[in-house]
Amino acid sequence: MRWRSDKGWLELLDQRLLPGQVKYLRFDSAEAVAGGIRDMVVRGAPAIGCTAAYGIAVEAQRLRYLRQSDFDSGLERAFEKLAQSRPTAVNLSWALDRMRRILQAVGSDAETLAPRLLLEAHAIHDEDIATNRAIGAHGAALLTDHARVLTHCNAGALATAGHGTALGVIRSAVEAGRNISVVAGETRPFLQGARLTAWEMVQENIPVTLIADSSAGHLMSRGEVDLVIVGADRVAANGDVANKIGTYTLAVLAARHAIPFYVACPLSTIDLATASGAHIPIEQRASSEIAGFGDLRWACEGAVMHNPAFDVTPAELIGGLITEKGVVLAPDETKIRALFGQGAP
Amino acid sequence: MRWRSDKGWLELLDQRLLPGQVKYLRFDSAEAVAGGIRDMVVRGAPAIGCTAAYGIAVEAQRLRYLRQSDFDSGLERAFEKLAQSRPTAVNLSWALDRMRRILQAVGSDAETLAPRLLLEAHAIHDEDIATNRAIGAHGAALLTDHARVLTHCNAGALATAGHGTALGVIRSAVEAGRNISVVAGETRPFLQGARLTAWEMVQENIPVTLIADSSAGHLMSRGEVDLVIVGADRVAANGDVANKIGTYTLAVLAARHAIPFYVACPLSTIDLATASGAHIPIEQRASSEIAGFGDLRWACEGAVMHNPAFDVTPAELIGGLITEKGVVLAPDETKIRALFGQGAP
Repeated sequence: MRWRSDKGWLELLDQRLLPGQVKYLRFDSAEAVAGGIRDMVVRGAPAIGCTAAYGIAVEAQRLRYLRQSDFDSGLERAFEKLAQSRPTAVNLSWALDRMRRILQAVGSDAETLAPRLLLEAHAIHDEDIATNRAIGAHGAALLTDHARVLTHCNAGALATAGHGTALGVIRSAVEAGRNISVVAGETRPFLQGARLTAWEMVQENIPVTLIADSSAGHLMSRGEVDLVIVGADRVAANGDVANKIGTYTLAVLAARHAIPFYVACPLSTIDLATASGAHIPIEQRASSEIAGFGDLRWACEGAVMHNPAFDVTPAELIGGLITEKGVVLAPDETKIRALFGQGAP
Repeated sequence: MRWRSDKGWLELLDQRLLPGQVKYLRFDSAEAVAGGIRDMVVRGAPAIGCTAAYGIAVEAQRLRYLRQSDFDSGLERAFEKLAQSRPTAVNLSWALDRMRRILQAVGSDAETLAPRLLLEAHAIHDEDIATNRAIGAHGAALLTDHARVLTHCNAGALATAGHGTALGVIRSAVEAGRNISVVAGETRPFLQGARLTAWEMVQENIPVTLIADSSAGHLMSRGEVDLVIVGADRVAANGDVANKIGTYTLAVLAARHAIPFYVACPLSTIDLATASGAHIPIEQRASSEIAGFGDLRWACEGAVMHNPAFDVTPAELIGGLITEKGVVLAPDETKIRALFGQGAP
C-alpha cells in the first residue's frame, strides 16, 4: 500500500491479481476503501487496519470543503462503512479507534483535522512495520538453522504494512543467516498461500514448497515439518486465536505430532474485550469462492456451499504468541493482560 | 464404465470432465486402458480394479489372431502395463491376479481364453456392485435418521462398478428411509468432492454441502458433523488405511472431537501382504495439479510443488471398517485376518 502525497490518494496493490499481474488501484474515498477491503483487494489483519486508517484520512480530505455539519456526518459514515467492511480482524476497529481519538483530541475543524488524520494513518503504517520487525526479531530466535516451517494463508508483507508477521519471523531468521525452508498450504478457497506467500518467498529466494492444504498432516506424519507459524485475525483475551480457515486443523495436527505451533501477531490483533474464541464473529464469504476460482467454476450445480473464512484455535493448542513485546509461551489471560500492563481481570 | 459387446470395446465416462460434461471415451487396448487409469479418466480403487480387468479382456480380444508366442508376450505386457498404471490402490493387482488365474486355469489358447477373460471381467464388475450393496446394508445400520455425514474425495458409484462404498452406505441409508445429509470436502487438488461426490448426491436429491477441505475441523468444532465415512485405496494387514490425501487429517480431527470415523471398503482393498501403512507406496502426482486446475494456473512460478495423492491413517484412529462381510470395529490384524478365514499370522 502506498500513499500518493502528490495525488492525495491511496494506492493498493490488487492482491486478487497476484502473482499473475502487479497492478495498483487508486482509492480516493472511504467508500472505495471499504469496498477494497470487503472485496479483498487488500487482506491480512494488520494491512486491513492500516488501510482503514488511510480510508478515514482520504475521506476527511475529500470532504474538507463541505460545510461543518456535512463534514461531520460524512466522516461518521466513513467510520461506520469501514468498520463494517469485514467482521473478524480486530485490527480494523483498533485502527479506527486510533483515528477517532485524533478526531476527539483535535476537534472536527477540517482544516486542522484532515492533515492530523493523515499523519496518524502514516504513524499506524510506520509503527506496523516497526512492530513486524520486532515480532521478527523475537520469533527468529525460535528458528534453528535448517528449520522447515509450515505456514498457512499469507501473513507476510502483503498482509501488513511490510515485513510481515509469520513471514516476518522467517525473513528475520533468514536475515540472521539461517537456512530456512517454508512449506506453504495453498489456502483454499482464496489461495493466498499459492499466490501470495509463494510469491513473497520466491521474490526473496527463500525456498518454498507449495502443498494442498490437506497434505499438511501427511507431511507432519513423515517428520517433514519442524514448526508451524501462522498469523492471526483476532486473539481473544484468553488466548484463543481466530485465523484463516484451516488454522485450527493445523494446530490439532501439530499437537498430535508434538510440533511447536506459534501465532505471530502484533498487540493490535489482541482484543481484550473479547473473552474467548466463542465470541469472535466468523465471516461467511460467498459460495462462489468454493464453486471455483476466478472465472473457472468446477463445482457441481445444486450443491450448497459453505464458506467460513476463519476458524478458532483454542489457546491450549498454541505453543506461543510471537508479539512485538516478546514471545508469550502457553498463552493465557494473565500473561496476555500482562502484555498490556494489566493485572488479572 | 460400460462394455460395448456390439463393438467389443470398453467405454469409460471421462471423470476429468465432470460435472460440466458427460462424455464417454472408447478403450480398445490394454495400453489405452492403462493410460486412462494413469490420467484419471477413471479413478477410485474398486473402479480401477474393474477397469484393469476389462483392460486384459480387451487386449486378449485385440491380440487373438496373432500367432501364439506374440499373443502370449502381448498379454504379458498388458498385465505389466496395467499393474504399473497407478501404485497405491491394491484392487488393481487384486483384479489382475484374478485375470491371471483364468489364464493359468484355461491356458493361453486365444480362442478359448479371450471369452473367458471377458466373462471374468464381467464377474468382477457384477460382484463389485453386489459387494457395494452389502457394504451399504451393513454401513447403513450405523446411520441414524438426520445424520450429517462428512466424506472426502469420491467413494461413490463413479469410484466403483456402481452404488459406491462410502456413498453406497449413504445411499443405502437413504433407501431405508432415513434423512441423511452429506458434507463433502472439495478434495484438492483433483476436486473429486466438488465435481464427483456433489454430482452423485445432487442427481439423487441427497442434500450435500460442499466445503474447502480445511473447513472440516471448524465444522466438527461447531458440532456440525455426526460421523465421517471415507473409502480406501489399500488397507494393510494391521488395519492402517491408505486413502486420498487429507483422510489422515480428518481422522485426527474426528478423534479429537470423538466423532466416529469409518472406512468403507470391499475385501479386495485389504492387502494382507502389506504389513502396515508404512509399506504402502504413496503415489506422487504432477506438480501441475497443485499449480492450478484445468487450464487455469494460479500458483506462483518458482515455488516447488509437492503432490502426494494419498496418506496413511493408522488403525488406532479408525472406528470401523465397513466391508461386505460386516463392520469390523476397532480393526486390528486378528480381526482382519478373520475376515479372510485366517487365524493369527
